[in-house]
Amino acid sequence: MTAVGIDAIEIWTGNLKLDLPGTFAPEKGEDPEKYTKGLGLNASSFPDSYEDIVTMGANASHRLMERKGLEPDGIGRIDVATESSFDNSKPVSTYVAGCLEGVFEGDFHHANKGERKFACIAGTQSLDDAYNWIRADRNRGRSALVIATDTALYARGDAGEATQGAGAVAMLISENPDLVELSTEQGYGSADETDFLKPNQQFPSVDGKRSVQVYLARMREALTDYESVAGDVHPDDIAFIPFHTPFPGMVRKAGLLGYRHITRDTTIEDDLADEIGRQPRREAFDDDEAFRDSVREYMDLLKGTDRYKAWYDATIDPTLTLSREVGNWYTGSVHIARVSALKNALEAGRDMAGETILVGSYGSGAQAEIHAETVQDGWTDEIEALNVDDQLADRYDLSWADYEEVHDVHNHEMDVDVEEFTTPDGEFVFDGWGRMGERKYRYVE
Amino acid sequence: MTAVGIDAIEIWTGNLKLDLPGTFAPEKGEDPEKYTKGLGLNASSFPDSYEDIVTMGANASHRLMERKGLEPDGIGRIDVATESSFDNSKPVSTYVAGCLEGVFEGDFHHANKGERKFACIAGTQSLDDAYNWIRADRNRGRSALVIATDTALYARGDAGEATQGAGAVAMLISENPDLVELSTEQGYGSADETDFLKPNQQFPSVDGKRSVQVYLARMREALTDYESVAGDVHPDDIAFIPFHTPFPGMVRKAGLLGYRHITRDTTIEDDLADEIGRQPRREAFDDDEAFRDSVREYMDLLKGTDRYKAWYDATIDPTLTLSREVGNWYTGSVHIARVSALKNALEAGRDMAGETILVGSYGSGAQAEIHAETVQDGWTDEIEALNVDDQLADRYDLSWADYEEVHDVHNHEMDVDVEEFTTPDGEFVFDGWGRMGERKYRYVE
Repeated sequence: MTAVGIDAIEIWTGNLKLDLPGTFAPEKGEDPEKYTKGLGLNASSFPDSYEDIVTMGANASHRLMERKGLEPDGIGRIDVATESSFDNSKPVSTYVAGCLEGVFEGDFHHANKGERKFACIAGTQSLDDAYNWIRADRNRGRSALVIATDTALYARGDAGEATQGAGAVAMLISENPDLVELSTEQGYGSADETDFLKPNQQFPSVDGKRSVQVYLARMREALTDYESVAGDVHPDDIAFIPFHTPFPGMVRKAGLLGYRHITRDTTIEDDLADEIGRQPRREAFDDDEAFRDSVREYMDLLKGTDRYKAWYDATIDPTLTLSREVGNWYTGSVHIARVSALKNALEAGRDMAGETILVGSYGSGAQAEIHAETVQDGWTDEIEALNVDDQLADRYDLSWADYEEVHDVHNHEMDVDVEEFTTPDGEFVFDGWGRMGERKYRYVE
Repeated sequence: MTAVGIDAIEIWTGNLKLDLPGTFAPEKGEDPEKYTKGLGLNASSFPDSYEDIVTMGANASHRLMERKGLEPDGIGRIDVATESSFDNSKPVSTYVAGCLEGVFEGDFHHANKGERKFACIAGTQSLDDAYNWIRADRNRGRSALVIATDTALYARGDAGEATQGAGAVAMLISENPDLVELSTEQGYGSADETDFLKPNQQFPSVDGKRSVQVYLARMREALTDYESVAGDVHPDDIAFIPFHTPFPGMVRKAGLLGYRHITRDTTIEDDLADEIGRQPRREAFDDDEAFRDSVREYMDLLKGTDRYKAWYDATIDPTLTLSREVGNWYTGSVHIARVSALKNALEAGRDMAGETILVGSYGSGAQAEIHAETVQDGWTDEIEALNVDDQLADRYDLSWADYEEVHDVHNHEMDVDVEEFTTPDGEFVFDGWGRMGERKYRYVE
């Protein structure tokens, strides 16, 4: 069977930066460590006044196509995943294609364009759809372009304000990919949940505590479902686990839960038994509550073991490096976690070809998906080609007054005009509204 | 290769009816024939105050699952296509699954739920995704539930007000389907167009004239693209062509364009040459305008030929029967056109098994897709099981005063409470708002 997976990835960050310990914390009268240690975040990427989900998605795609030497007729499918859409009918992918047709020869008139919505998991769903399209032999040798793009903004003063972010990830899905092959096997955990909503509104309504519980419950279901088709997952077989990362603190919880699950009935559980006992089993308890208390106790102990810490530092922590500097990118978040892990491996001089990554995606509302990826020989070239460090370093560092001003630009309910903080250079920019309320774009050389 | 396609379809109409010649025309001071002959519409289906895209989608799915004897664990994927969404993050499919879990044993916790948006073409895109998922061997023997659900309402006084509609189509996509097998071959015509938008708004902004042009241009591109992979389409090989039907008048134009295209260089063109000449070819003209004028002239003559009229009456007209009585259902529209054609064939006692249908879907913004379907042996049982005639006959016939009142209920910008006109019976109903702005539902026995 021909391998199908991600051939290339490009990342495009919003051009502004909000420094959490330096700018946000003092203004909120909070200890900077609330953000850096608690949430695990140093900064948020933020869109300048000429940026939005279309410009960021088109810019990431433009870089990707240029770098891979692609023309529009090599692309048979363009899917955009977002929860920051500004139109209930016309998909963002048509705007992105319109931008790209302005700078490339040819057109995307025979490409299937679409848009997927399911909170933060829609990027992975679009990736899976693209994989299926190729496997179904409908691609005619062409690749799919999958774009996860969001302006993950909250109302001013909302508890989520510290976890904001803005950026896009463009992925090329192809036969014989250079970066990772996707597994046919997938696991799902999915339920009708009310943890994070945007009912006829742009900024979310969030039940933060519930959202954490639901993330963990759905991820556990997805892992069980994945193992039912792919067999048991063992820590020794997995190089990295990129999780959806609303903020790194959430992933610390997910990592611990995952480790407990995949070490159950292994020699690792045996090895740890002297130090912290064996994992509680439901059948040994009279009721659910006693069982849950015991599990919590075991998890607290597990977290403190050297064995767990070494696993976490090797398998989870490297997935968080980028997230710490950019915040939550919603649909793109799990995909920058994958890049972050591979980038760390490259910088450590590690040979990843043939290694397995387990990807844990999540979207509120709520659904988790788990699949495996096998790193391909071309991975070093792909990761070396990224300029994400330069992009992050080049962001304009917002003062608090700047931040207050530019936040309103991205509030769909306000109509404000703010001078840009940065000068666009070789990128698509928002260029005002058309007569039917459509957004217009142009390319700045 | 195992056949993959649509195993079963169910339709759920909004419980109200707006009579266009009887109620709408007199109020607008227009000749009733403007609607019945011009647009080709007799009535619009309209949602009662307790109905919305979730209730209609869940009700269609409930009927479908009951009739096919399905339990939740037989469903591995639930995709909803809509352009009437009320949340920018949580997908409608999670609400629908929540409803269904209330009446069936078991749950959909291991089903992939999603939502697609691309004007009226998203239903077909979701159907294609489900097909690909099965072809990619990821379904584990399970089926996909694809739901196209919309409340296609316009602002009061808008030119589109006469083409409104509301309803849902639920489709079960399976291996060895009972109704139709889908072709692997597809054709796309797609461009970044500004013909119909909903920029941060519920009711559309429409450029009616442009929308008709774009529909035809994209459909022609899709047909050319389809023929490039599937070979030339000949009228003799196609039993029906269900098109996306915003109103039947639009399909009259599409049918004529399609016929001209598929008869070019055939003996049909030769047979017609004595009567109306041969089709104009671009190379015989000095400029595009002269060519286009000549094409228009040919089309006018073609439309008047007995040969064309017989083809139209056999191939296109039967697809419009339901649409005339329900108006535009957006994402569901092309799928009720398919049902309409097969229902006419059943009523005419025609044997359709093994016959080919060509399906022409369209969404503004804009994109057309064409694929073929082969009717399966089980088609008569599937079509006989529909109760759509009863549903249409049972609708409450709105007076003008009723209509004015209930239209506001479905305007997301208004908060009005209107007594229902019908009594829900064995169906899901909207049951008010939750504390985070979520919509709540319950089943009425």
